[in-house]
Amino acid sequence: MAKDTKLYISYNRVHQLVKESVERYRINDDFKPDLMIAIGGGGFIPARILRTFLKRANNKNIPIQAIGLSLYEDLGSYNLSTDDSQAIIGTQVIKTQWLHFGPSHATTSPLLGKNILIVDEVDDTRTTLAYAVQELSKDIEEEKRKFLQKNPGCIAPETKFAVFVLHNKKKEKRMEFPDPSIIEEGRYYAARETPDRWLVYPWEANDIEEHTKKSLIQEQEELQ
Amino acid sequence: MAKDTKLYISYNRVHQLVKESVERYRINDDFKPDLMIAIGGGGFIPARILRTFLKRANNKNIPIQAIGLSLYEDLGSYNLSTDDSQAIIGTQVIKTQWLHFGPSHATTSPLLGKNILIVDEVDDTRTTLAYAVQELSKDIEEEKRKFLQKNPGCIAPETKFAVFVLHNKKKEKRMEFPDPSIIEEGRYYAARETPDRWLVYPWEANDIEEHTKKSLIQEQEELQ
Repeated sequence: MAKDTKLYISYNRVHQLVKESVERYRINDDFKPDLMIAIGGGGFIPARILRTFLKRANNKNIPIQAIGLSLYEDLGSYNLSTDDSQAIIGTQVIKTQWLHFGPSHATTSPLLGKNILIVDEVDDTRTTLAYAVQELSKDIEEEKRKFLQKNPGCIAPETKFAVFVLHNKKKEKRMEFPDPSIIEEGRYYAARETPDRWLVYPWEANDIEEHTKKSLIQEQEELQ
Repeated sequence: MAKDTKLYISYNRVHQLVKESVERYRINDDFKPDLMIAIGGGGFIPARILRTFLKRANNKNIPIQAIGLSLYEDLGSYNLSTDDSQAIIGTQVIKTQWLHFGPSHATTSPLLGKNILIVDEVDDTRTTLAYAVQELSKDIEEEKRKFLQKNPGCIAPETKFAVFVLHNKKKEKRMEFPDPSIIEEGRYYAARETPDRWLVYPWEANDIEEHTKKSLIQEQEELQ
């Protein structure tokens, strides 16, 4: 029988990877995020776990906002209107949910001047993550424009991005971040660098006990 | 030493509770959800796991949209504008994120005629869940109004809600669902009914191995 080349990751392993990365990358001390933006559905679980380990100075939870992005190739027979086709050209990504802050932010600039941690489970071709940064940057430009209209002569506060993923696959990327400072200034946090293998996250498992066993065996093999 | 009265729930247990509930409540056969709305951050993890076990006829994933709701009492020294105060009166809940479908839905009614599964981790006082149903119903009324404008004389397709939680605390609720059919027609899915105990979910754990051990001991005690 051929060796199973998939990498099985247990829930407890995911939890520990998140905790360990917050410490290793000194995210609380250096980047100090004000806001997380989880890319759904893959980013939901890492983002929620991150919230446990990220603490704001005032002891409140870091808010999580969710966005939905789908790679066009994953959408199959998706019925395209003209709007969609335009969104797809050059990016192969479409928005299925975007930011919509509640009335508490009606008169504020929720992204301007913030340290924003974008969260997803895996960085494969980087297409989705790069698109997220690109589209968020447009929203920030719009907030900046409004800020300068209200405060002529002032300098708009700077927004910084960081990116968190559980796994970065070591392979050629199809897109790069439009903001190179994310990589250059060390705000790209990958809990693990992996070869281009098939990763099986626990939330995808049909039989979670079987999945956890496979994950434990692989972890022990790694240690040998 | 006093007995620890908290209930510790492991990740694998959460996963199994979700799987078991989908089967027990025949969610795929009876309700057949078209869309999940996860209440962040508690609903993120159950919703992502649910997606693994909920399958649409066309074999595509059920889309997940996220909303953010905060109980006013949890917000501490939150700075209130007039808008916020209005949102709070009577409900004690404020929206921190709301639905914002991507351009693929620009000309459609994303909620109208859909079976929508609202997901959260726990039903404590029911305040947040009831508020979610109330506010989503307003959006649906608006979609209905637009539909009837475009299609005079037609009947607008009906939207149905169901609610999924991991735990329902058996206690007097502070609010009831504005749509009584959720309960009356059996579309309220709680994986477990629990006494009014302190529940510790795995994503809140600092030491996940310790947490998992406590959870396993409690599960074994239950079986005795």
